[in-house]
Amino acid sequence: MQIEIINIGDELLIGQVINTNAAWMAEKLNLDGFTVRQFTVVRDDRDHIMKALSDAETRASIVLISGGIGPTGDDITKSTLCEFFRTKLIFNEEAYQDIAKLFTQRGLPVTHLNRKQAELPENCIAVPNKLGTARGMWFEKQAADGREVIFISMPGVPFEMKAMMTEEIIPRLKKKYRTQPIYHKTVLTQGIGESFLASRISSWEAALPGSIKLAYLPQPGIVRLRLTGTGTDEDALHRLIDEEVLKLNRLIPDYIYGYDEDTLEEIVGKLLMKKESTLGTAESCTGGYIAHLITSIPGSSNYFKGSVVAYANELKRKLLGVSDESLTKYGAVSEQVVKEMAVGVQKNFNVDYVVAVTGIAGPDGGTVEKPVGSTWIAIATPEQIFTNYFLFGDNRERNIRRTALQALNMLRRVML
Amino acid sequence: MQIEIINIGDELLIGQVINTNAAWMAEKLNLDGFTVRQFTVVRDDRDHIMKALSDAETRASIVLISGGIGPTGDDITKSTLCEFFRTKLIFNEEAYQDIAKLFTQRGLPVTHLNRKQAELPENCIAVPNKLGTARGMWFEKQAADGREVIFISMPGVPFEMKAMMTEEIIPRLKKKYRTQPIYHKTVLTQGIGESFLASRISSWEAALPGSIKLAYLPQPGIVRLRLTGTGTDEDALHRLIDEEVLKLNRLIPDYIYGYDEDTLEEIVGKLLMKKESTLGTAESCTGGYIAHLITSIPGSSNYFKGSVVAYANELKRKLLGVSDESLTKYGAVSEQVVKEMAVGVQKNFNVDYVVAVTGIAGPDGGTVEKPVGSTWIAIATPEQIFTNYFLFGDNRERNIRRTALQALNMLRRVML
Repeated sequence: MQIEIINIGDELLIGQVINTNAAWMAEKLNLDGFTVRQFTVVRDDRDHIMKALSDAETRASIVLISGGIGPTGDDITKSTLCEFFRTKLIFNEEAYQDIAKLFTQRGLPVTHLNRKQAELPENCIAVPNKLGTARGMWFEKQAADGREVIFISMPGVPFEMKAMMTEEIIPRLKKKYRTQPIYHKTVLTQGIGESFLASRISSWEAALPGSIKLAYLPQPGIVRLRLTGTGTDEDALHRLIDEEVLKLNRLIPDYIYGYDEDTLEEIVGKLLMKKESTLGTAESCTGGYIAHLITSIPGSSNYFKGSVVAYANELKRKLLGVSDESLTKYGAVSEQVVKEMAVGVQKNFNVDYVVAVTGIAGPDGGTVEKPVGSTWIAIATPEQIFTNYFLFGDNRERNIRRTALQALNMLRRVML
Repeated sequence: MQIEIINIGDELLIGQVINTNAAWMAEKLNLDGFTVRQFTVVRDDRDHIMKALSDAETRASIVLISGGIGPTGDDITKSTLCEFFRTKLIFNEEAYQDIAKLFTQRGLPVTHLNRKQAELPENCIAVPNKLGTARGMWFEKQAADGREVIFISMPGVPFEMKAMMTEEIIPRLKKKYRTQPIYHKTVLTQGIGESFLASRISSWEAALPGSIKLAYLPQPGIVRLRLTGTGTDEDALHRLIDEEVLKLNRLIPDYIYGYDEDTLEEIVGKLLMKKESTLGTAESCTGGYIAHLITSIPGSSNYFKGSVVAYANELKRKLLGVSDESLTKYGAVSEQVVKEMAVGVQKNFNVDYVVAVTGIAGPDGGTVEKPVGSTWIAIATPEQIFTNYFLFGDNRERNIRRTALQALNMLRRVML
């Protein structure tokens, strides 16, 4: 069974908006065992939409359409759909009541445009839209060669489309096509490159059961490992994958920080909450990025007290009490200085844990002994201080990101 | 003249990679007066690529293809192109020398795979690739109806494709199709919403010459205004647009912070460099994000001394000298406290300028008097302190971003 995705919108074709909808839809469909074979992006134009629909009909069994059904007049998708499916728009009382309810909740008046939005093609099944006024439309059509082809039109607004796909479209497609149970678990690793990771887990990977597939999904500083299993018995599948994840955990415990949608800043925050502990940071090369990640989590004020971003050595001395001697003798990027930064936070902030970093983010500032990318990280606990040296790359943005992720993962490990 | 873009790659169709290439290509082409009518994304599959090429041929005059010409064996694009254009691969000595040179520069051995990369379809014009091993391929073909259709195949690696488009493909297309001179200038504004901005500049907009088009491009906290002019006399066009930008500057001087690709953190950095001045920040609700933006600019250590991220009130007192009395009497989110934070930085950091912010980012912490989004910003200069109150929205991430942009723009205005 082949799926195609058609995205409608001039804003996509002038490059003003990136087509994230298609990628999101394809990813979700893939996770549920459906194969997407083509994306097509077309203009808000009757002829163009008609042609895209009839072309897709010859190739696919399911055609997902997003975009072009908003309340404004330049959206001609709905009338074109009527033409393509040889039907007409009729007023749908139920859809109208939903729209009216949504507007009343938001304290807005219901307008003529909204009334028009409640008009739907006569031969479609209306799909609820909890988050917006445009309903989805589900059409079933017989192609020229006799095959049944499903066409589903959805809003282009990402959060409306996503909710509709997750809650309505995918469950209905799964029911109709009874796809095989499929189960995914993504293991998140930090601090080990893709090729090193692959060689560390090669024997585990080679011994994986045939029903489980492994994908490496690398990002700067992070490698995600996605295990995908298919089978007939859903419970057995879950057990099988969970077992393999357990084995992996025994193999590389230091690198695995979480699963699926977890982030390091979330995981670290949860650990601090659980321990009822507090955190402070002292940042040089990361320039506040670690504090930014930590405070991007709602409720982080429960455990995060603050940070000193000591970009100038003067502030390392004044606010963190780093000694002149260490700065002169060892330089700002040194084990001694990162330790003193951590101690300074502990003294001044009255916190349980400290993250301190100092490094050369680049592009300038590198020397032969300390090239760009040289970084010291310290983690202080109530009992002791751990330090580590890293040599990252030559890209400023990535060095900042990798230093922050590495520091958060070190903190996580120390807390466990 | 119609352009279509075909992107080849299974990674796009499983949603692992978002198709940013098509949006980037379309944007650049549009800026040079070309119209893109369709994007199609297809699999790394011979039949599928053949079908996409022949379909595009019936509709477009120019077909841009990206992806599927890397060194690995699963890329079947090149042999499919040979089949489609009824030609064969021949070894290209010049292409081989370029590849060998690139590898020698990087200290890598030239392999059999690289030799294969130097094989190109006999009837294509090879397009140089400064940044990679895969050459672009330019084909000219007569469609069934007699029209000439240009097909251009490029690498899928974004930075290679972008360099090739900018330096080779677009200049060649412009030469071949002699497009009308077109000139764009994007005016960047901060601190005013789209609808308020539109009403503030409505009479200027109404009086724009017919040869100039205006587009509103909003982002959280920022609205970009793109002026596009077309005409036959390029110099006159530039003068005309520059004049309109000047008028706009007289109309809304406080909101305009830069042009085209400028960022506020860059603009502020340049101003500080020019004034040979230094900056320090004190952040509460932004949690280090302002310091992060400032230090994302290479060379920022020349003017940025550091920041105190005082998330806890305890640190506002200890590190910034905010008084107990002000915290108790007015609360942490108040004009008094933000002023004292700024003064604290001036005293401790020995800097010329200070940015201080305190607010309620949400989702928790709001009250009836101080709802989520309430924010105080202070800018201290060597002479005085300016303060401003803002009520942003209810989204934590956007509140942090908007506070940071607003603070940087206030700093910019104070410095001017």
